[in-house]
Amino acid sequence: MRGAELTETLFTGIAQLVTPAPGPQRGAGMRELTVLPDAALLVRGGVVAWVGAERDAPAAAHTHGLGGVAVVPGLVDPHTHAVWAGDRLRDFEARAAGVSYEELLARGGGIRSTVRATAAASQAELVALARPRLQALRESGATTVEVKSGYGLDFGAEVRMLEAVRELTAEFTLMPTLLIHVPPTEGHGEYVQAVCGDLIPEVARAGLATAVDVFCEKEAFSVVETRAILEAAKFHGLTAKLHADQFHALGGVDLACDLGALSVDHLEASGEAQIAALAASDTVAILLPGVTLHLGLPAAPGRALVDAGACVAVGSDLNPGSSPVFSAPLVLALAVRLNGLTPAEALSAGTVNAAAALGLRDRGALAPGQRADFLALHSPDWRDLAFALGARPVRDVFVGGKELTP
Amino acid sequence: MRGAELTETLFTGIAQLVTPAPGPQRGAGMRELTVLPDAALLVRGGVVAWVGAERDAPAAAHTHGLGGVAVVPGLVDPHTHAVWAGDRLRDFEARAAGVSYEELLARGGGIRSTVRATAAASQAELVALARPRLQALRESGATTVEVKSGYGLDFGAEVRMLEAVRELTAEFTLMPTLLIHVPPTEGHGEYVQAVCGDLIPEVARAGLATAVDVFCEKEAFSVVETRAILEAAKFHGLTAKLHADQFHALGGVDLACDLGALSVDHLEASGEAQIAALAASDTVAILLPGVTLHLGLPAAPGRALVDAGACVAVGSDLNPGSSPVFSAPLVLALAVRLNGLTPAEALSAGTVNAAAALGLRDRGALAPGQRADFLALHSPDWRDLAFALGARPVRDVFVGGKELTP
Ligand SMILES: [Zn+2]
Ligand SMILES: [Zn+2]
Repeated sequence: MRGAELTETLFTGIAQLVTPAPGPQRGAGMRELTVLPDAALLVRGGVVAWVGAERDAPAAAHTHGLGGVAVVPGLVDPHTHAVWAGDRLRDFEARAAGVSYEELLARGGGIRSTVRATAAASQAELVALARPRLQALRESGATTVEVKSGYGLDFGAEVRMLEAVRELTAEFTLMPTLLIHVPPTEGHGEYVQAVCGDLIPEVARAGLATAVDVFCEKEAFSVVETRAILEAAKFHGLTAKLHADQFHALGGVDLACDLGALSVDHLEASGEAQIAALAASDTVAILLPGVTLHLGLPAAPGRALVDAGACVAVGSDLNPGSSPVFSAPLVLALAVRLNGLTPAEALSAGTVNAAAALGLRDRGALAPGQRADFLALHSPDWRDLAFALGARPVRDVFVGGKELTP
Repeated sequence: MRGAELTETLFTGIAQLVTPAPGPQRGAGMRELTVLPDAALLVRGGVVAWVGAERDAPAAAHTHGLGGVAVVPGLVDPHTHAVWAGDRLRDFEARAAGVSYEELLARGGGIRSTVRATAAASQAELVALARPRLQALRESGATTVEVKSGYGLDFGAEVRMLEAVRELTAEFTLMPTLLIHVPPTEGHGEYVQAVCGDLIPEVARAGLATAVDVFCEKEAFSVVETRAILEAAKFHGLTAKLHADQFHALGGVDLACDLGALSVDHLEASGEAQIAALAASDTVAILLPGVTLHLGLPAAPGRALVDAGACVAVGSDLNPGSSPVFSAPLVLALAVRLNGLTPAEALSAGTVNAAAALGLRDRGALAPGQRADFLALHSPDWRDLAFALGARPVRDVFVGGKELTP
C-alpha cells in the first residue's frame, strides 16, 4: 500500500508526448521516437507511472493541465566545465581580431589563465560563479547536468572544484567528474603517478566524483598516460570518460572502447577506423557542436557515427574558452546544423544517450519507471525544440514531477 | 522652458557604458567604441541628454540605479521576415535527413508553402502569429526591427502583411518594407509591371512601407527587373533595399550602389569586385549569419568588407525557411564566429550601422540627441553580449528611456 501514499499527478493537455524508448539507442534506433498526440502522463512519487492517450488516462489525486503543448523528456547535458573563475573575454576579442592561440598563451591568456583564476578562488566563490550558469542550463531544459573539475591543476584546487559541485547538488541534479585536463609544465610522469596514487583514491574515498575523465591529446596526456589514469579510476570504482580526437586521432577512441569507457567526447578528428570502433562498442560518442561554432573548427562526424550504428550523445561542453554555450536546446539545434543529425536523432542524443554517457538508465525517456523529468514546450510541435535558434523553446521544466520556478 | 517639463531620469550604476559614435561607421571606425567606466546616462523626454562619469552627473528629477552592469545601445534588427503563417518544420526534418530543396518544393514544401499559408491567413491571424516572434526579438534586445512583406505574392496578401505590421507598431518600434520576393510561376514581365504601376503606388499612398526590397537572384528577379522595381520605388518616395549575391553575384551589388540603395543584404557570393564597390559607396552591407548556420552555406565576407572600409550591418533574417533566429545578440555572436567580425565591430554593425540601413540616424548610439533606446546587461562587461551562445545576456530593455516589461 506504500505506493498509494505517494504524491500522484496526472498531466493533461499534452498536444504531443514525444520520447525515445528507455536506455541507450544506437544508429537507426535513435530516430525511432514515440509520438503520442493528445496524451497524458501520470507521475507517482517522482516517477512516470503511466503514459498514454488522454482519453484513456487513469484517475489521479491531482491534475495539472499543460494547455496543449508538446512534452519531451528533460534534457541531459553529459559534458560541462561549469565551474570556473575569471573570464576569457579578452581572449575572445583577441581571437576575433586574428590573434593565434599560441600568442594568447604567450600573453597570459588561454586555459592557463582559467586555471590560475580557478585555483585562486574559494569554494564559496566557485559555487556563486557556477550557480547562474547551471540555472541557465536548467531553465533551458537540462534536468541532469554533468560537471567536470579540471581547472585546478594542483590537487587541492581539483578537490575544491568537486566540493563546489557537491555543494551545488543541493540545488541541481549534477553528476560530478574528476577531469585530468591540463598537465603541469614540468614533471608529467610524477603528476600522472600522483593522480593515480593520491588524487583518484582521495576523490573516490570522499565520493566526490562518479567518473574520471582524461584529456587525451598531443599537448595534454598521451594514450599510455590516459590508460594508466583510467585503470586507476576503475580500480577505485569510478567509471571512465575521455576527451579524445579533438585535434588528433592518437588512439584515445580505441582505448575508450577497450576500457569500456562510458563515453568518448569530441571526436572532431575521428576517421573511419574510430567510427567503426565506436559502432562496435557500447561506449557513447559525445558530440560537442558548441566548440565547432565557437572556434570555427571541423565538426565531429555525427552523421557517419549514427549511420555506422554508434550510440551518439550531445553535450554543451560549457566552458569559457572553447564553448560558451548556455542552452541545452541550442546544443540539439547545433547538432542538426553542424553534425548532420536529424531532429529525432538529436532528441535521443540529448536524452537517453546523454544519460547513458553518465551511466544512467533511469532517465531520458517518458516511460513507466523512469524519473519524471520532463519539459513542456511553448509549441505544440516538439520539432521546435531543435528548430529555433536563440529562442527559448522550453516553457516549463519538471524534475521528479515537480515544476521548477526559475 | 518646455524641456524642463519633460520626464527626466538619471540612470546610474553603469559599470561600463559602451557605444559607437552616432551615424554609420565604416571600416576601422566600426571598432572605435567609447567605453566609459562607472558611468551615468541622463534621459529627458525619451532622448539622451547627457552621458558621462557618474561622479560628474547632473541632478535629475528621477534616478534609476542599474546595479553595476554594462549598458549598450538598443540593438537594431534591419532585416526580418517576421510575419508568416504555417511552419516549415517538416522541411526542417526532411532537410536534416538529406532531402534536397528541389525535392522539398516538389513535395509541396519550401517557400511556396509559406506563401500559400500566409496568403490564406487573415490580418488578425498574421498579427497574432508575428507578435511572439517580435516579443522574443525585443526581449533579446532589439529595440527597432524592420519587417518585410514578401510572402503574399498576390497584392492583396502583400498589403495585408504590411497592414499587420502597421497594427503591430502599436506595440513595437517597426520599420515596414515592401519585399518583392517570389515571382509568379508564369507572367514575370506582367507581374513586374503591375508591381511598379499598381502595388508600389498603392503602398506608398497608404504609407504602408518606407522601403522597397527586391530579391535579385537567378530564381527570383533579374537585375533589369530589380532596377525597374527600385526606380519605381524611388519615384514614389520610397527607399531601396536589395537581397543580392545570396547564391550568385549577378550584379545586384553594383545596382544597389548605383541606385544609392540603403542596403544590400546577404552577400554570401560576393567577391572582390562587390567588396570594392561597397567600400566605395554609402550603401550598407548587411550580413545575415543565421542563414549560414541554419543552411550550412558559405558565410558572407564580413571581415573583408570591414577591412576594405565598407559600412557593415548585421540582421537576423528571421524567417521560417532559412534563418529561424529569434535573438538579436545571437546575431552579433554569430557575426563574430561566422563572418570574422570583432565584438566591437559586431556592436557597431548591430546598432548605428543597422539603423543607417533603415535610413535612421537618430538611434544606435548613446550620445546627446539620440533616442534613449538602451540595454542593461546581466554582466558588467559588454563583451558578454556577443560572447555567450544560447544565454540571455540582456537583463533590461529600455525604449525611449522607459523600461519594457516582457
Ligand atoms: Zn570538455
Ligand atoms: Zn531575407
